[in-house]
Amino acid sequence: IYITSTSPLLKGEAAAIETELLKDYRFGQQQLIEIWGQACALAITKAYPLSSLSKKQPTVLVICGPDQNGSIGLVCARHLRIFEYEPTIYHPKRSSQGLHQDFTVQCEKMDIPFLSYLPTEVQLINDAYNLVIDAMLGPEADTGNIKEPYPGILCTLKQVKIPIASVDVPSGWDEEEATQDGIHPEVLISLTHYLAGRFLPYDIQKKYELNLPDFPGTDCLIKL
Amino acid sequence: IYITSTSPLLKGEAAAIETELLKDYRFGQQQLIEIWGQACALAITKAYPLSSLSKKQPTVLVICGPDQNGSIGLVCARHLRIFEYEPTIYHPKRSSQGLHQDFTVQCEKMDIPFLSYLPTEVQLINDAYNLVIDAMLGPEADTGNIKEPYPGILCTLKQVKIPIASVDVPSGWDEEEATQDGIHPEVLISLTHYLAGRFLPYDIQKKYELNLPDFPGTDCLIKL
Repeated sequence: IYITSTSPLLKGEAAAIETELLKDYRFGQQQLIEIWGQACALAITKAYPLSSLSKKQPTVLVICGPDQNGSIGLVCARHLRIFEYEPTIYHPKRSSQGLHQDFTVQCEKMDIPFLSYLPTEVQLINDAYNLVIDAMLGPEADTGNIKEPYPGILCTLKQVKIPIASVDVPSGWDEEEATQDGIHPEVLISLTHYLAGRFLPYDIQKKYELNLPDFPGTDCLIKL
Repeated sequence: IYITSTSPLLKGEAAAIETELLKDYRFGQQQLIEIWGQACALAITKAYPLSSLSKKQPTVLVICGPDQNGSIGLVCARHLRIFEYEPTIYHPKRSSQGLHQDFTVQCEKMDIPFLSYLPTEVQLINDAYNLVIDAMLGPEADTGNIKEPYPGILCTLKQVKIPIASVDVPSGWDEEEATQDGIHPEVLISLTHYLAGRFLPYDIQKKYELNLPDFPGTDCLIKL
């Protein structure tokens, strides 16, 4: 699957639109991350409704990176908890950014469990969770230079049999190039589409020459 | 209808829990208002799905007060727009608070129309909108001392024939006492329930001796 076919926004454009939202629209960073994280959780309820889960408990493993994508994962986990899923978070590298720390505390205070390490025995992951949410490396990540522990995690994720849902871009994929030996998410929660298709008035869509597909209802899901 | 039967939180308790969320849980004010506004919009999609609306256009009139309840209304309007409703905002008194102004700009930039006055001819409201969202006076309002323009608006709302959905508490109602000659909302979007029932871990529910009803799925709706 070639990611550019589903993502009309280039890296620089997504960043430019985010800057515009923060400056001209007077959104706050905290508010945008809350919106995106909630949109992710809603997307998960659509793609994997509680009634469709095969395991006895509605468990979900949410893997969070150190930057904005990880913050979105933390918010997503909190909303999944509100929607009566049972998220567990794996968040190997804590950020020193205050906002990221706040989102972490909110999850801890909601009694969402945090894993101290990811099992390397893949069968343990397959048995314990219904699905994995990949909120590791966002579109801003330098895919040519991913540092530990993320290559190790990606290696584990390549072997899991349960579905993976990736936030914004599959971790390790280059947006403009298919990654042959990357992870294989079942679903992509496209926040750039959600952002571009639902938030922005028509004149911005025109300015960035966004040629958006139709997303029915409140969806921001792409089947890969 | 006696409001205390549906609202186990007293005014002081709701405020105490909000303080706890801000201090101990490290939520931000902006983030909480975003969450509550979005919860309102979701509640509206449940109570009044697009397919159920009788008018040709999915129009909704959102009346916003000057304080937190009004901010929640602004966020609700923005999310309704995202969910493909056509909100119109009436926001008679602009706040000088930066956060409230940001929420206002976000709506203006999304091309949501603002009314400069509310028609006193009730039939115009009945004809133009499918429903009214009352986000005027929150639980913190001093119902014994409501200042213009709100008594006039309440007087108009008492006569409208289309349904009213109130945010958190029907404007003008005293939380602890039924208001005989108040407005008659069809639905109450109970954010204190949503807050208490979904956000908070069990120990806080115990601390405040919250005896919560079961809210199915993602609902925070009470039929009045």
